[in-house]
Amino acid sequence: MDESFVALQFKEEKLVLLDQRILPTHVEYVQCATFEEVEFAIRDMIVRGAPAIGAAAAYGVYLALKQCSGETDFYQACTFLGQARPTAVNLMWAIERMLSVYEQCKIGGRPHALRRLLSEAHAIREEDIRTNKTISRIGNRIVPDRATILTHCNTGALATAGWGTALGVIKQAFYDNKQIFVYADETRPRFQGARLTAWELMEAKIPSKLIVDSAAATLIRDGKIDLVILGGDRVAANGDVANKLGTFALSVICKAYGIPFYSVVPVSTIDFAIPDGSAILIEEREATEVTHVQGVQVAPTGTQVYNPAFDVTPHQNITGIITERGIIYPPFKENIERLRRGESL
Amino acid sequence: MDESFVALQFKEEKLVLLDQRILPTHVEYVQCATFEEVEFAIRDMIVRGAPAIGAAAAYGVYLALKQCSGETDFYQACTFLGQARPTAVNLMWAIERMLSVYEQCKIGGRPHALRRLLSEAHAIREEDIRTNKTISRIGNRIVPDRATILTHCNTGALATAGWGTALGVIKQAFYDNKQIFVYADETRPRFQGARLTAWELMEAKIPSKLIVDSAAATLIRDGKIDLVILGGDRVAANGDVANKLGTFALSVICKAYGIPFYSVVPVSTIDFAIPDGSAILIEEREATEVTHVQGVQVAPTGTQVYNPAFDVTPHQNITGIITERGIIYPPFKENIERLRRGESL
Repeated sequence: MDESFVALQFKEEKLVLLDQRILPTHVEYVQCATFEEVEFAIRDMIVRGAPAIGAAAAYGVYLALKQCSGETDFYQACTFLGQARPTAVNLMWAIERMLSVYEQCKIGGRPHALRRLLSEAHAIREEDIRTNKTISRIGNRIVPDRATILTHCNTGALATAGWGTALGVIKQAFYDNKQIFVYADETRPRFQGARLTAWELMEAKIPSKLIVDSAAATLIRDGKIDLVILGGDRVAANGDVANKLGTFALSVICKAYGIPFYSVVPVSTIDFAIPDGSAILIEEREATEVTHVQGVQVAPTGTQVYNPAFDVTPHQNITGIITERGIIYPPFKENIERLRRGESL
Repeated sequence: MDESFVALQFKEEKLVLLDQRILPTHVEYVQCATFEEVEFAIRDMIVRGAPAIGAAAAYGVYLALKQCSGETDFYQACTFLGQARPTAVNLMWAIERMLSVYEQCKIGGRPHALRRLLSEAHAIREEDIRTNKTISRIGNRIVPDRATILTHCNTGALATAGWGTALGVIKQAFYDNKQIFVYADETRPRFQGARLTAWELMEAKIPSKLIVDSAAATLIRDGKIDLVILGGDRVAANGDVANKLGTFALSVICKAYGIPFYSVVPVSTIDFAIPDGSAILIEEREATEVTHVQGVQVAPTGTQVYNPAFDVTPHQNITGIITERGIIYPPFKENIERLRRGESL
């Protein structure tokens, strides 16, 4: 039931990443031997997806300690890593977790600290895979047999340390012998749906069709979608979800036509410190992502572009947020607070 | 104030079309000397946009009469032309108008009929340009000074015999010295917004930015769009509008956030014979439009695709339909019936 590929692994002191910029036509791996290379891999989206970014950054912190002789340099390196992309909270979450381990163990000396950091990075990666499998079993409960599911962007093994979140739920339902059908939004501008999700769905042999993002609305209105399941890059304390651009529009259509709309995230994606989505910084990326497709120009030279990478879906449009600790339903603020206090949902 | 280019003209017995498949990186013209070449140009979207398709088809009918020795062949050629694309009503409207002229004049002999058909095709083209200018003056009334306008697909000089419909309104407002700003949806899968509208906006020096289709929703919610103005490929008798895929989603977002939403069409785009949008055949186009961009593959080989070219926006989501006879407001059914009866709006 596992993937035929490993998108993120640490081998021979290098972070080895399946290059997600050029999939599915090219299956190539990029090796990162330095924290600078890890930072570039995150920024340039060789690796993307909130949980995968977190795991990659954890190895980046380990590599930073290896490279930096002084503690000031090390902290600077971690700050640098943390600025690679602004929206997904998992990046800072992983770096802070690694730094917390470092503070605890640095008294034992540098070789000890290095061993502890490497083992913590491994732990983050392995926990993420376990978490995803737990999430998927929990999420599977809300997938009816014979469901037609719409998903957006990529939330599979490529977006995580392995297995996936929203796509993990979909795979779990399929391997549980539910007869599901998936519509995958292509997800402009970076085509994560076309390039990555369509590829993962084919690898898993799940019946599916690819659509342009604008095609989802009519499918939803015409009753051809039973539920929408997608990921999340940062969840605010009131349940507002920042996710890949296009999520908000889908949520409005679903609300207008009464279709269930779920975000699937590990608890590490919840940012308990921000009260609502308005506090989430939305990354704006470069114009060429829109004006060029894999190097081919599709807009006139000199075209001005507005290219936000994410949008914020208000909690009022969300049916539930599926996590490894259970499904968060409204009232989101109260239930996320219970989660924060360690209470059961 | 006119365009720096002529996208559709008839010269030396050939229909000369600016090749809209390869704009803006390549400015090349295609010559159609036969009705089969005209049919291909429409089907392959060398020429696109409901009014432009109508004008091109009119010349196609003239060429068909030139080519066909027998009347049966001529009628078959017209049927063939009429099947090039199913959704835009202007295609059939233009062919029927040409055939009606043929029926009236054929008694005068073949050379006479040929002259009359060529002059009727010219008339259709010239009327379309005049109509667009009238539409634009009327539409300009609803554009406030300093408006930020969102548009979708291409409705400019490239989509018509010249000048444009929705983009005509936008140009008129700009030339009327209103300080407008335009967001242009790129319009997947064929990128008419990125390739054609962005190009026309730059040619006209109208301040604008290009966005992916999914970026519109947040701009609308956040009050950054004052109104949406776009075209229409077929309007039903109750005001439902079939237009480029993505229009319906925009209409739902606009309705949810109280933003005015206008469709701009010549009266020839209104199909008085169909009671509502459910009767409009929505063209499904080939998978490669989604899986490939200008020949570059963006989805795995073998990906299944659902690729509708249009969607239907219910009249309940539409603020007004701007035509050369005036702006149609709700109740649409009653007001479209008045238009049909020749009454003023």
